[in-house]
Amino acid sequence: MKLLYPSSLVLDTKELEGFAATLHPYDVKKPLPEDVIDAEVLVTWSNSAENLNDAAKRMTNLKWIQSLAAGPNDVLNAGFDSKKIIVTTGSGLHDLTVAEHALGMLLDGARRFFEMRDYQTQGKWPGHLGGPQPDRPRGKFTTLRDANVTIWGFGNIAKALAPWLTSLGANVKGLARSSGVRNGVEVYGDDKIDEILATTDALVMILPGAVSTNNALNAARLKTLPKHAWVINVGRGTAIDEDALVEALESGEIGGAALDVFVKEPLPESSKLYKAPNCIISPHAAGGRPQGAEELIAFNLRKFMAGQELRNVI
Amino acid sequence: MKLLYPSSLVLDTKELEGFAATLHPYDVKKPLPEDVIDAEVLVTWSNSAENLNDAAKRMTNLKWIQSLAAGPNDVLNAGFDSKKIIVTTGSGLHDLTVAEHALGMLLDGARRFFEMRDYQTQGKWPGHLGGPQPDRPRGKFTTLRDANVTIWGFGNIAKALAPWLTSLGANVKGLARSSGVRNGVEVYGDDKIDEILATTDALVMILPGAVSTNNALNAARLKTLPKHAWVINVGRGTAIDEDALVEALESGEIGGAALDVFVKEPLPESSKLYKAPNCIISPHAAGGRPQGAEELIAFNLRKFMAGQELRNVI
Repeated sequence: MKLLYPSSLVLDTKELEGFAATLHPYDVKKPLPEDVIDAEVLVTWSNSAENLNDAAKRMTNLKWIQSLAAGPNDVLNAGFDSKKIIVTTGSGLHDLTVAEHALGMLLDGARRFFEMRDYQTQGKWPGHLGGPQPDRPRGKFTTLRDANVTIWGFGNIAKALAPWLTSLGANVKGLARSSGVRNGVEVYGDDKIDEILATTDALVMILPGAVSTNNALNAARLKTLPKHAWVINVGRGTAIDEDALVEALESGEIGGAALDVFVKEPLPESSKLYKAPNCIISPHAAGGRPQGAEELIAFNLRKFMAGQELRNVI
Repeated sequence: MKLLYPSSLVLDTKELEGFAATLHPYDVKKPLPEDVIDAEVLVTWSNSAENLNDAAKRMTNLKWIQSLAAGPNDVLNAGFDSKKIIVTTGSGLHDLTVAEHALGMLLDGARRFFEMRDYQTQGKWPGHLGGPQPDRPRGKFTTLRDANVTIWGFGNIAKALAPWLTSLGANVKGLARSSGVRNGVEVYGDDKIDEILATTDALVMILPGAVSTNNALNAARLKTLPKHAWVINVGRGTAIDEDALVEALESGEIGGAALDVFVKEPLPESSKLYKAPNCIISPHAAGGRPQGAEELIAFNLRKFMAGQELRNVI
């Protein structure tokens, strides 16, 4: 049995040895060579659309695709036969790195490093941001300590992020389809969204892409947030109504936004988000660095060969 | 007995009641009114030099000054009689807020939010910073996970910061005058400085201002750091040789610097640090928000009235 693994990232293939499978690296930007086209297993990471379309046509033996992306839309849209081929995602490989990015964005907003940078590039000292400052003033988001931070979409990334926020002194709450206490954090259901948003100092959105999450943060809910509240988005761009967000930023209806994902990426140069006040633009940089891929591939390879259920099946 | 407290910050004076002392607010930017000039206790926060110079001349009953600053140079330089008057500092009131700022600066450097901002202000998408990225590549500081972070100056701020860094996956070490394990962190003495610097990915400097810490990070030690290493300074500007730092940044001898303190503040517009590559300028904004001042004042007031030793005596 052949397993094809991508050369687009560094994998420790020693961790994949010991199975009755041969391991073959491949270039994710080119058509697959003829001598491996009969492989049963394909691991994907940042493949080109051409590579995947070609593989969907030519890999007639293929039974399982292990993507290392959390949301492998590229694979799902390439024309593979979903009746014959199992697709598993890289969910869990990006938790720590996305959570770290979200923490950095929260601190960028609270400590206003972005505004300091604007002064610096003009050779100016932003004196109003330094020196004696009021401590935790009401109606401002200036620190994580005692801040009400709401995480909307409470999966594994939230579970990585929440303890860090708690240790920095934040009051963390969750919003998700099903309510309950998860990893020590009180998570509220959809019926409580408006109530929770109304007392939120910083909202971290980690919603997956789905019809049900489309424009989850719309004009009405932006109005429900306090005027000083910050919005962080490291989930999917479609979860925010971008026009409504621009208006909320321009009119001062919210305190700010730090965005890593957008409806259209790269964010078009015509987007008003680039120049909206208190808006931080990050180029889908939160994840993109799978961690622990070898363990996931090895686990799923074992299950695949034993005919058992794989992890992260779509 | 009269205690004068500053109106330059919000103090919960209820927390100071119950002692045989009357509490009087005062304006830190004006000369003290005649009816409180006989006070024995003066609490200071962001006083003007004129206010302090005037108080030093006129407060003939003064026995104790409680500054809320970590390093009250303003009080020490105002001409108070150091033989008659005890001065206590606000050490400990700024630990969490300075540590949070340092964490934000570390993430700003690792995740390159400053560079993203430069693109954003030009209406450009910094595509090279997003999408698929190598995970924890050698010779780069791109995440706290598995990074070697060295904290130079291991007091209470370091003790607040270190657990956060550890929970984010960093390998934390300390440098200080005396070696040993503190709060679970291995702290090395002066004889190990070069050895530790040579394997440091990010150096957080929290050294106090003193003759012995002057230019602690000089040209030779900047050369000892790896070429990708970042330097964060939230201690005192004098601890870094700024000219050597500019040279190290311009020549790519280190990876970057995030500075909250400078030899001269505000940083003069002529300083080359503003335009040095990979340099983040923050306007002495890490602290400046005392937290828990009431508890410190009340504790020391009790000790003062009992004739016992105060906390944070200079």
